[in-house]
Amino acid sequence: MPSQQHKRYSECQIQRISAQEPNRKVESEAGVSEYWDEKNEQFECAGVAVVRHIIYPNGLFVPGYTNSPRLTFIEKGRGIRGEMIPGCPETYQSSQEAREGRQRFLDQHQKVHRIRQGDLLALPAGVAHWCYNDGEEPLVAVVLLDTSNDANQLDRNHRRFNLAGNPKQDRFETRPRGTEEKLERNVLGGFDTRILAEVFGVSIETARKIQSVDDRRGNIVRVERGLSVVRPPLTREEEERERMRGSQPNGLEETICTSRLRENIEDASRADVYNPQAGRLRSVNSYVLPILDFLKLSAERGTLYNNALMAPHWNLNAHSVIYGLKGQARIQIVNEKGEAVFDSVLRQGQIVIAHQNFAVLKKAVGDQGFEWVAFKTNANAMINTLAGKTSAIRSLPLDVIANMYQTTQEEARRLKYNREEETILLAPTSRSSRPQTAFA
Amino acid sequence: MPSQQHKRYSECQIQRISAQEPNRKVESEAGVSEYWDEKNEQFECAGVAVVRHIIYPNGLFVPGYTNSPRLTFIEKGRGIRGEMIPGCPETYQSSQEAREGRQRFLDQHQKVHRIRQGDLLALPAGVAHWCYNDGEEPLVAVVLLDTSNDANQLDRNHRRFNLAGNPKQDRFETRPRGTEEKLERNVLGGFDTRILAEVFGVSIETARKIQSVDDRRGNIVRVERGLSVVRPPLTREEEERERMRGSQPNGLEETICTSRLRENIEDASRADVYNPQAGRLRSVNSYVLPILDFLKLSAERGTLYNNALMAPHWNLNAHSVIYGLKGQARIQIVNEKGEAVFDSVLRQGQIVIAHQNFAVLKKAVGDQGFEWVAFKTNANAMINTLAGKTSAIRSLPLDVIANMYQTTQEEARRLKYNREEETILLAPTSRSSRPQTAFA
Amino acid sequence: MPSQQHKRYSECQIQRISAQEPNRKVESEAGVSEYWDEKNEQFECAGVAVVRHIIYPNGLFVPGYTNSPRLTFIEKGRGIRGEMIPGCPETYQSSQEAREGRQRFLDQHQKVHRIRQGDLLALPAGVAHWCYNDGEEPLVAVVLLDTSNDANQLDRNHRRFNLAGNPKQDRFETRPRGTEEKLERNVLGGFDTRILAEVFGVSIETARKIQSVDDRRGNIVRVERGLSVVRPPLTREEEERERMRGSQPNGLEETICTSRLRENIEDASRADVYNPQAGRLRSVNSYVLPILDFLKLSAERGTLYNNALMAPHWNLNAHSVIYGLKGQARIQIVNEKGEAVFDSVLRQGQIVIAHQNFAVLKKAVGDQGFEWVAFKTNANAMINTLAGKTSAIRSLPLDVIANMYQTTQEEARRLKYNREEETILLAPTSRSSRPQTAFA
Repeated sequence: MPSQQHKRYSECQIQRISAQEPNRKVESEAGVSEYWDEKNEQFECAGVAVVRHIIYPNGLFVPGYTNSPRLTFIEKGRGIRGEMIPGCPETYQSSQEAREGRQRFLDQHQKVHRIRQGDLLALPAGVAHWCYNDGEEPLVAVVLLDTSNDANQLDRNHRRFNLAGNPKQDRFETRPRGTEEKLERNVLGGFDTRILAEVFGVSIETARKIQSVDDRRGNIVRVERGLSVVRPPLTREEEERERMRGSQPNGLEETICTSRLRENIEDASRADVYNPQAGRLRSVNSYVLPILDFLKLSAERGTLYNNALMAPHWNLNAHSVIYGLKGQARIQIVNEKGEAVFDSVLRQGQIVIAHQNFAVLKKAVGDQGFEWVAFKTNANAMINTLAGKTSAIRSLPLDVIANMYQTTQEEARRLKYNREEETILLAPTSRSSRPQTAFA
Repeated sequence: MPSQQHKRYSECQIQRISAQEPNRKVESEAGVSEYWDEKNEQFECAGVAVVRHIIYPNGLFVPGYTNSPRLTFIEKGRGIRGEMIPGCPETYQSSQEAREGRQRFLDQHQKVHRIRQGDLLALPAGVAHWCYNDGEEPLVAVVLLDTSNDANQLDRNHRRFNLAGNPKQDRFETRPRGTEEKLERNVLGGFDTRILAEVFGVSIETARKIQSVDDRRGNIVRVERGLSVVRPPLTREEEERERMRGSQPNGLEETICTSRLRENIEDASRADVYNPQAGRLRSVNSYVLPILDFLKLSAERGTLYNNALMAPHWNLNAHSVIYGLKGQARIQIVNEKGEAVFDSVLRQGQIVIAHQNFAVLKKAVGDQGFEWVAFKTNANAMINTLAGKTSAIRSLPLDVIANMYQTTQEEARRLKYNREEETILLAPTSRSSRPQTAFA
Repeated sequence: MPSQQHKRYSECQIQRISAQEPNRKVESEAGVSEYWDEKNEQFECAGVAVVRHIIYPNGLFVPGYTNSPRLTFIEKGRGIRGEMIPGCPETYQSSQEAREGRQRFLDQHQKVHRIRQGDLLALPAGVAHWCYNDGEEPLVAVVLLDTSNDANQLDRNHRRFNLAGNPKQDRFETRPRGTEEKLERNVLGGFDTRILAEVFGVSIETARKIQSVDDRRGNIVRVERGLSVVRPPLTREEEERERMRGSQPNGLEETICTSRLRENIEDASRADVYNPQAGRLRSVNSYVLPILDFLKLSAERGTLYNNALMAPHWNLNAHSVIYGLKGQARIQIVNEKGEAVFDSVLRQGQIVIAHQNFAVLKKAVGDQGFEWVAFKTNANAMINTLAGKTSAIRSLPLDVIANMYQTTQEEARRLKYNREEETILLAPTSRSSRPQTAFA
């Protein structure tokens, strides 16, 4: 059997890639998990895995952790989420209960926070978390797992360690002939039951329950009468206040315990790039969300209006995993030989990866425009554009342009300055609005 | 021939591992070096190598360096040690001699320091060092070599470069038929003798000596009448003073020259975790020993009393290479499928590796308790426990526990709070003290 | 087809290496690019690639970028160079033009700087740049590409992405039978021409020009009447002033935009090591050129006079890629088994790699002395020497030396102190000046 390699470096001889949808689906009692094929060459070259979880209302995603740092984007819905961070101080108790002066033996737990559509959530490798859908529609979360990140010291396979439940056997995967369906167990299931009883100070019967031997609910379980848990406030001001509090330094443990792990990236008023004729763009890097410096990941949230373009550009220092949120776009991706390895439409729910240094161009097609989130494998991913006001071509002396492209001075001037008024997001020109420009 | 890979990432499809003892032994004139099998799947997945050196009294471990950063734990004995750090300023001369005002041409050398049982010693890749046993019992040193550390830019094979001596051919290894025993040479042995004579300004005869062509003493040589070297003071106060001095910044070269490379981790009074009914635990990370930040390694020294337990936990961001120092423990290690990949007793002198994210549980068995040192592949290795006062389960709301494990509220409360008074080290309960709990 | 691996770690079982010259040559209209064989074991183990560009007078190296960080050493000639750094502020406009108060629509572009013989130029992965020879002799640039650097997230193959031109098919490479010569294209060549016209706001005809479909000039093109571009001043004082300006902090973008990317390392008066009888040595690490901290690379420029030696030493934390600039030297490189893997003469224009931890010795032979530049795969590459005033052997107590080499105390004293007056660069002794010491 060939050994597993450090995948980010394994193979990037990409000739032709296509838009990817999940190829594996695992159903749980109260939700579905959909996996993209890690062995697909786009994902192999990028060294990442992606999974989309759909948590139904009243569904609880049971606690677990993975061997990779990850970014989660909440595509739809709302809920509450808790991270289980070791060694964090008492300040993470639920303060509301304490304030109300109730009886002595209250339940106390680590910080719980609201999540909602548009949230980007960051989580280091090995940190367990749980999530609950307390809304009325399914909660859809798209998760990037950076399996080739230095923080993963195991091999490049994505692994999830469950603290409860029994991940159900994948019903869409073919099993080798003659193998029985074998339920995987949560990690407690592998310990001696008597020792577990001793460790927790409970009966053998209770210890058996936490091993979940006969539990067939999967990773996402139904909470019958709704989860009773201290919920953080919903209002924006309180959110802001909590956020401020979160950024106060608090000794050594500030590195993780008081880190903000969340940033909402939907808010149009906070766009980094905005062109009223073309769309908007927002980047979340480690300057915005410092924990990303530790994860070596960042993200971008983009919107293109009908027929608008994102100027051709390349990612200097990161792969860009592009996930379609709404509408569709014609995307072209070009390799170092000048070959278009991708020239197709990306639709909602599909992924295409623009690898480091490959040139990319997006044009919204159809009548809904195009919205996307892109996960990037660098805490401060940078792009350089080939056209527009801030482009690489603007940085060149005119005579360099004229000589490199064998144009007249006047053509060089047009190449450099015709789009001067525009940002990286370009409004459609009259010519481009004609149907023939769209992908046939 | 298959090429060598970046081993930490090569293969972690671990099904079943067992406690490991060295499988290769190399005898020298005044000591023995014992090597664990680097190709064993535990070591391959972790990307580390381990060797144990036993230096007899009056044995000198000749200078050399390795291609990996390393942590050494002094299991037994005492001695003196010197690191050969390039470019360090004159302050590293033997100050005692200078103080006594002896004649002009005194011997001067870099800092030499005492080592003794319980010391953890850190050394960057490529830094040469030597060591001498000036005690009356064998000096036993267990060395972790992080061959998959970024600081090793060669392939993942452990390599030792000797500045003297002639490493003896391994007498326990099988040699391919028809091959002659071929002595390896120290690195000086590979240079032209005449140029060496010129370089050192000595005779050809002396140059031949430093090439050690006919030297068959191995890496550890006997010093007949004891080594004459300026010894640092033995008293604790002086040690403390030296340590303080060492931490004063001193310009650019402070990064390495004035770094403390040593921390004694035996001292019970400095435990980080202490439970008088269960045992104690001490961690040495980069906050304690800043050079570890550079090495990306840390260590833990643990003691469990009879039948006491270390709560089930996982390493978030590191592998944990567990070496038994005294007594024995039943250890269980569980993978992401809930399978116990290890469920056995670890004895003195044996190693088992708990890989990143795998769940681990230790219970001292037998009547000596259990003592260990664990080397960790992260400067600030973190664990999260599944039971006890600071555990992951304590961080969860009660209703999450009840739903994830399908228990009553009362059972959830017991799971969460029954062990509230305890730390990660748990005293045996009456039930657990019965023999049947121990490993049969 | 075997998959590509993370090459730095792929294979370092080096038995015997030889001095390397380029094995592949690509001619352009106004220059030549010469490539060393990336698959040669020296380069595979080090995980680097090297290329030498010769740009004829009036030759323009068209803009492009690579997937690896790189160091360029200007071996000969002079020219001007521009980096295309995304998002840099307006301060990078050509200020001379602005000062002269010319008409409104002036050409404006990013910083352009002079380069000249002896310059070391640093460039992060993915940053595009161009270069123009405005001198009267060929401009010769030796480029180290650190393909196994973490900043390259693709596989280990060196890739150049051209923004113009059409890299000509290698005329010295054998093509598989039956394959047609296929011109590679610049990255713009892979996009839809109509969309490009829209993006740049130009005609289809102009868009075709920037795709350079029929351009056969290669990467280095001739500028017929000389390039018209605002040239930075030539005088030393102005250079110094510009350099000072460059080091002023300027908010967030200072990390790249205001970084100095250049250091001239020819200037004899700024040597770090100087021995009037032996030669001089200058290191450029991240203390000198802070951008190197980001690139994880550094360099050394050395000069040895006739018959002088560079003391035997090893690189603690880096590979050393040695390129001969002038004259010749006998170089010996020794592995961990004490075998000389290299014992030969290195001449001008040749490369040999001294891998991390391997012991190295250089002796100028012939009557021109020896000059070299060494690229190192660490921002702060360190060496330790085995002889001379600052050597490892000086750091050892006398009695350790006597015992490790089985010498008398007197011999140990000679080994340690005979070369006390010398630095790492050693003058020839009378014996060594005799012809027989040179390589036969």
